[in-house]
Amino acid sequence: MIDLPALAEIVRDSPAKILFLVIDGLGGLPHPETGRSELETAHLPHLHALAGKSACGLTTPVLPGITPGSGPGHLALFGYDPLKYTVGRGVLEALGIGLPLGPGDVVARGNLCTVDAQGVIVDRRAGRVSGQEAAALVQRLARIRLPGVHLEVHPVREHRFVLLLRGDGLSEAVSETDPGRTGVPPRDPVPLAPEGEYTARLVAAFVAEARRALHGEARANMVLLRGWSRLPSLPNFCHAYRLRAAAVAAYPMYRGIAHILGMAVIPTGSTFAEQVATVQAHWQQYDFFFLHYKPADAAGEDGDFTAKVRALEAVDPHIPALLALNPEVLVVTGDHATPAVVGGHSWHPVPLLIHSRYTLGEGVEAFTERACARGSLGRVPATAVMLLALAHAGRLDKYGA
Amino acid sequence: MIDLPALAEIVRDSPAKILFLVIDGLGGLPHPETGRSELETAHLPHLHALAGKSACGLTTPVLPGITPGSGPGHLALFGYDPLKYTVGRGVLEALGIGLPLGPGDVVARGNLCTVDAQGVIVDRRAGRVSGQEAAALVQRLARIRLPGVHLEVHPVREHRFVLLLRGDGLSEAVSETDPGRTGVPPRDPVPLAPEGEYTARLVAAFVAEARRALHGEARANMVLLRGWSRLPSLPNFCHAYRLRAAAVAAYPMYRGIAHILGMAVIPTGSTFAEQVATVQAHWQQYDFFFLHYKPADAAGEDGDFTAKVRALEAVDPHIPALLALNPEVLVVTGDHATPAVVGGHSWHPVPLLIHSRYTLGEGVEAFTERACARGSLGRVPATAVMLLALAHAGRLDKYGA
Repeated sequence: MIDLPALAEIVRDSPAKILFLVIDGLGGLPHPETGRSELETAHLPHLHALAGKSACGLTTPVLPGITPGSGPGHLALFGYDPLKYTVGRGVLEALGIGLPLGPGDVVARGNLCTVDAQGVIVDRRAGRVSGQEAAALVQRLARIRLPGVHLEVHPVREHRFVLLLRGDGLSEAVSETDPGRTGVPPRDPVPLAPEGEYTARLVAAFVAEARRALHGEARANMVLLRGWSRLPSLPNFCHAYRLRAAAVAAYPMYRGIAHILGMAVIPTGSTFAEQVATVQAHWQQYDFFFLHYKPADAAGEDGDFTAKVRALEAVDPHIPALLALNPEVLVVTGDHATPAVVGGHSWHPVPLLIHSRYTLGEGVEAFTERACARGSLGRVPATAVMLLALAHAGRLDKYGA
Repeated sequence: MIDLPALAEIVRDSPAKILFLVIDGLGGLPHPETGRSELETAHLPHLHALAGKSACGLTTPVLPGITPGSGPGHLALFGYDPLKYTVGRGVLEALGIGLPLGPGDVVARGNLCTVDAQGVIVDRRAGRVSGQEAAALVQRLARIRLPGVHLEVHPVREHRFVLLLRGDGLSEAVSETDPGRTGVPPRDPVPLAPEGEYTARLVAAFVAEARRALHGEARANMVLLRGWSRLPSLPNFCHAYRLRAAAVAAYPMYRGIAHILGMAVIPTGSTFAEQVATVQAHWQQYDFFFLHYKPADAAGEDGDFTAKVRALEAVDPHIPALLALNPEVLVVTGDHATPAVVGGHSWHPVPLLIHSRYTLGEGVEAFTERACARGSLGRVPATAVMLLALAHAGRLDKYGA
């Protein structure tokens, strides 16, 4: 793959607009009883008709067999090699709750957990303590103060929280205290490099304070910390592709990813109809829109085949409004598959369609996993989708004479 | 992709002959009125029948979305990674007019351009000055002499020319004087590395002389220079693949590319019938023939759908003669797509057929973009075509025990 900085030679300006509709968790697998996938089951007249007039294919998000998280899934779609460019887990968790991060901040994902009298972990998730109970306990952690550093603790949901450290001289080069299994005590935080020594001492002090703050609790009486990370330094999407790019997403994590890539993040509502209206209202201001639709993934994560079918059916009626904007290029794809029968993200290839005046229009009969496998785009790495979109928009010069 | 030098371990000698028919700009897109591409419109009984008996697929010339120039397009087909091996623009322009280049020569592409009284560029192409007028002006440039260096200026067509410098101590590490836009003056040539200092001074002297030589012209009163380059050092095609390889091409640029790869370049006529006769006459002397057919690309570049259809139809009747030579492997493909609706090279995948006794013969019904998308070869990088050709010719040993 051409690395982003190398693109500068061939990317050119153009008024052509590109609209990326990312249906999170788009791909699926057949229901065991019907033999039909979610896309094959859903009533999707507009998407199926569009596929027939588009170039279709399947994307490989990272590598065959590799299941991407939301970070790598989206980075790849935006043309960032997800094996080279990474966003730390702590940062993603913070982005997921809409926490604004500064360049020096260090964040970790935290779990409330249960330890026995000997300090040995007996439940890494504190019995999946309820949201209300957890929020009260996280409040206690948030009152912890350490000298010389600004410290924040924010609840995520159930047993999960985010720990943020802000101050001079912080580093993410600290080991995780979560051993990833029960039957052993939490690990002491140790520096992974000389520059991590100060932070490791701070983390050890925080853990000691947290133990005291949670003392006496039956379930959530200790914390586990992992995924130490800082805001990554990634090539700017708008500069690399010479695009005025905007994100329209209802969920904080996707707004956060767009933000760290340098896209404008347009405030929008929580429904897809509101998101579409946001795109319409700002259509003239940007060249590239990242429009993110979450419910398909959420239903797949829940293992709810019917809900995923309904989530797909809920996006279909909006396709005409998107086409009516007359984008030079409309891309519809997902960041990864979330088959309901898997009940989580999966490694399966993801349907892709590219609609533009410069596509073959190979006449596949539906926007499904099986039909897209017969499309002219074939199997492409997800990192190629941006190149294809730019090419179809007339935004790439010839490579070489 | 296996890099060429690493192939030595598995390439073996064989008497099997390989014939590569490269139909330049082969791939196309549907005509807006009929919905059928050039290949789908043309009457191609022999190619369609051949496709049904061959292994078919689509090549990706460089990367999805990347439109290759003729250089990268052909390098890829010959198995050279076009992102790793490059031929400079000046060299390609020189090859295009059949200019013999020595290893120390430095060449640039030149434009006649128009500057105003303040020296600001107002037309980068001098109003696309006619061939006759341009040739007379280039003659003036060709009379420029500089001490210590041999200098040649050759017309290409319209406003374009080639500047060649020959002598000791020359370097291509010189900046381009063409700013790539109007409204600014030409840039001064500056060295891009210490070894470019001498050449940059020579180029500045040439530009000053050229300004004087063109003084008073209304349109073509200045020159722009870009694409400084020298003959690249590329792995030798014949050695890497253990082939006695010959090129039969009517256009100088393709003969030039073949020459710098180390192929024999057989003199031939300007018609395809003459080229086929040349292959027939030399059939016993070589193991590999690169037979290049240009008119399909030229018609596509002109945006002339009907002319491209006719150009494809003109090659079809020669297929029986090529099959009658009984090559162990006949490959028919293109270096890139040149859809008439684009009016230039494009990034679209290119039909590929490989005919040999060791192909599946999957029975695709036609040699078209859509039919080849369903072929057993699938989508392959163009750099894999030589490996496939060698394999089908029995010229590759097993890899590993």
